[in-house]
Amino acid sequence: MTRNLDWSELKTILDDRRVSTGESVLHLHSHDESFHAPVLPDVVVWPHTTEEVSRLIRWAGQSKVPVIGWGAGTSLEGNPIPVQGGMVIDFNEMNHIIDVHPEDFQVDVQAGVIYKDLNKALARDGLFFPPDPGAAATIGGMIGNNASGIRSVRYGATKDYVMRLVVVLPSGDVIHVGNRARKSSSGYNLPALFTGSEGTLGLITEATLKLVGLPVNFMAVRATFPTILNATTTVYQIMRAGLAPSAMEFLDANVMHVLNADRGLSLDESPTLLMEFSGYSEQGLIEEMNFVEEICQQSSALSLDRGIGADQRARLWEIRHQTYESINRYHTGLSPLIMDVAVPLSRYSEMVEFSKKEVHDLTAYLFGHAGDGNIHVLVMDDTQDKKRWTRVEESSRNIVMKALEFEGTCTGEHGIGIGKNCFMETEHGESLALMKRLKALLDPDNLFNPGKFFL
Amino acid sequence: MTRNLDWSELKTILDDRRVSTGESVLHLHSHDESFHAPVLPDVVVWPHTTEEVSRLIRWAGQSKVPVIGWGAGTSLEGNPIPVQGGMVIDFNEMNHIIDVHPEDFQVDVQAGVIYKDLNKALARDGLFFPPDPGAAATIGGMIGNNASGIRSVRYGATKDYVMRLVVVLPSGDVIHVGNRARKSSSGYNLPALFTGSEGTLGLITEATLKLVGLPVNFMAVRATFPTILNATTTVYQIMRAGLAPSAMEFLDANVMHVLNADRGLSLDESPTLLMEFSGYSEQGLIEEMNFVEEICQQSSALSLDRGIGADQRARLWEIRHQTYESINRYHTGLSPLIMDVAVPLSRYSEMVEFSKKEVHDLTAYLFGHAGDGNIHVLVMDDTQDKKRWTRVEESSRNIVMKALEFEGTCTGEHGIGIGKNCFMETEHGESLALMKRLKALLDPDNLFNPGKFFL
Repeated sequence: MTRNLDWSELKTILDDRRVSTGESVLHLHSHDESFHAPVLPDVVVWPHTTEEVSRLIRWAGQSKVPVIGWGAGTSLEGNPIPVQGGMVIDFNEMNHIIDVHPEDFQVDVQAGVIYKDLNKALARDGLFFPPDPGAAATIGGMIGNNASGIRSVRYGATKDYVMRLVVVLPSGDVIHVGNRARKSSSGYNLPALFTGSEGTLGLITEATLKLVGLPVNFMAVRATFPTILNATTTVYQIMRAGLAPSAMEFLDANVMHVLNADRGLSLDESPTLLMEFSGYSEQGLIEEMNFVEEICQQSSALSLDRGIGADQRARLWEIRHQTYESINRYHTGLSPLIMDVAVPLSRYSEMVEFSKKEVHDLTAYLFGHAGDGNIHVLVMDDTQDKKRWTRVEESSRNIVMKALEFEGTCTGEHGIGIGKNCFMETEHGESLALMKRLKALLDPDNLFNPGKFFL
Repeated sequence: MTRNLDWSELKTILDDRRVSTGESVLHLHSHDESFHAPVLPDVVVWPHTTEEVSRLIRWAGQSKVPVIGWGAGTSLEGNPIPVQGGMVIDFNEMNHIIDVHPEDFQVDVQAGVIYKDLNKALARDGLFFPPDPGAAATIGGMIGNNASGIRSVRYGATKDYVMRLVVVLPSGDVIHVGNRARKSSSGYNLPALFTGSEGTLGLITEATLKLVGLPVNFMAVRATFPTILNATTTVYQIMRAGLAPSAMEFLDANVMHVLNADRGLSLDESPTLLMEFSGYSEQGLIEEMNFVEEICQQSSALSLDRGIGADQRARLWEIRHQTYESINRYHTGLSPLIMDVAVPLSRYSEMVEFSKKEVHDLTAYLFGHAGDGNIHVLVMDDTQDKKRWTRVEESSRNIVMKALEFEGTCTGEHGIGIGKNCFMETEHGESLALMKRLKALLDPDNLFNPGKFFL
């Protein structure tokens, strides 16, 4: 969608270098890591301050230009694709850690900080920001998407860490929401309204995040099982027992096969659980591990690798984090459709079994944050082959419908974007109308990440 | 405010017994536990179903009658006082535990369930709902207020436990928000919008709550200190060390004196910390306690009562929970103004010191959920003595202003009601305008708990 606008007007707001309509720049901001078709924006800008963001947004409002926030482009549902063109506001030059408050377990950051960089910087104070989606996501993108990942089973999602935000509204007005107290009952919970709104209600420029102390001791376990059901039942038993793993990941045999092939490993190619436990007391940890081992054995575990040290543990998570990339590399030329349903834990085994059957005729990989009831089904296929891709999308729809039947959600952590907006009505029913009214209230011209969230 | 309406019309919606304009009933629903002046509603109704609530609300909308939700009347900021009269919807006959999902650590309840009753029922499954404000509050009231209490230092506030709500909007429409998965990135976070909205945006009739497994082991400690500063520094040191108490309460010497007098105890009348630690491993707990003891000794603790057993622990919390009532009883004839600021932990000692100085000329008690940076200053005085009461209110204002200067909040857990709406603008600045627009969007006739929240 080409607009006949004088983009050079933007250079009255930002210096030349920070406004681009160059083709390669537009291409870089036309897609995320999903199969969804790229769409070029009209212009990309790199602000440095909230004030600049506000001025850019006022300009866009006057010119009726769509505004799309951009973090690292690592999302998986087409969330930042500028489907109606417009102005992409890239936050990569707003990447400063403004202030660490180690004494309060808090940090103030600009939206463009990469969470892995943040955690490196925080380690010197013995602190960390737990949500851990794997990719090199920015804090702004994580807040926009309410990202979670492998640590959320213990520590919760991004929404649980947002204390205070600076938000630029579609009007260009700048508001500060939240405060730095550990708790508050003051006013409507505006930080929660913006978190997970995928840039449709405003753009987040700064955030104060809650932090957690790095655990003193941890222990990682890899357990393999003869069947998927044995593995998923184990997840349920461990969580049911009130144990609190800091990670609890499921990977099916297909995933293990690709990881071996892609990373030159020789891991058992059986349904696998990767678990991590952490705590203050080593003795306490050992007691927990004994209990975990007992549960695994009752579920007919084939093998159990326990007490993995720091290095091997880091490598294990690195491998887990590379799952998506490894599978994509293994099937060069094919496109990924990744599902992301989450269900109550009691339904997890059924959900995984149903999914496995649903994709039996496809090139499919099952893995996910099992302790949260979150399963990813990754199907690799050819988007150009209409018949096959229709079948891929049908499997996705059936899996989502089953998750909703189980009182779950169509997306545990990847968000709605353009991949899941077709399920919003089924999932939210009459409350979707309220979401639309909130959107119309804040963004009456529908300029903020238009074409997302709502059909 | 008397209305010339035919309240008997309501008897076409509910049977006779569940509609009352009787004087004693109106009186019971005219006040909470604060000093704020009572105001009589026009009518009180007791629905049994969401459908009945919806019909009542549609009737009120057509007749332009204010609607006020009523739980147990235990709030402390005048939150449910029907300051413009109208219809009080009392949820006490919607008090069923609908379904326990022990396998998912979840429960579905009607809004009128008392949380203490809920926890009694859940104990048989080894589960509990952690927010613990002390009074006999209902779940609906706790959600409306985002209540917290002594366990929130470890487990968070009510907002952290709300998974799904049934809400009747001011239009009378019924919406279901949220789902039963442990995590979700689907749509705007509507459960969070209604939680803490104090009945100004809609009424909650049912909720699905997240639960926590009852800890296997716990240990309680009572430590006394020569000065307040020694006590508050200890709080900071313990939290800073990354220890995770399941309660961390501060009580000043005045409070200990009243508790002794009112409850026939003989506790040290010095600044006191009550702490509880809990966990899976007894050995792990002992290690934690050794560390806590060390920190207390470094802060010149006068005494340290450790390893208190289950009975004495229960009694200790019972005493703590009675603090408000004990102090009120001790000063019969005087009225309570209770402050509820919360600040970042690093500012807690300063905040408490400032507060102590601010109320030096008043009959004042300091206590609070120290681990959360939450301090209650309870002043007992005569509301009829204009000069004195003006001084009481001035101290409250000064304490709130200091908390806001420290990047805290005017209310950690009691909510806004009519006691704190004068601070909304200072605390929220430009984001208050957005709150007002949200209110106008959902409740254009301003019938839901009018006169609250906003000035």
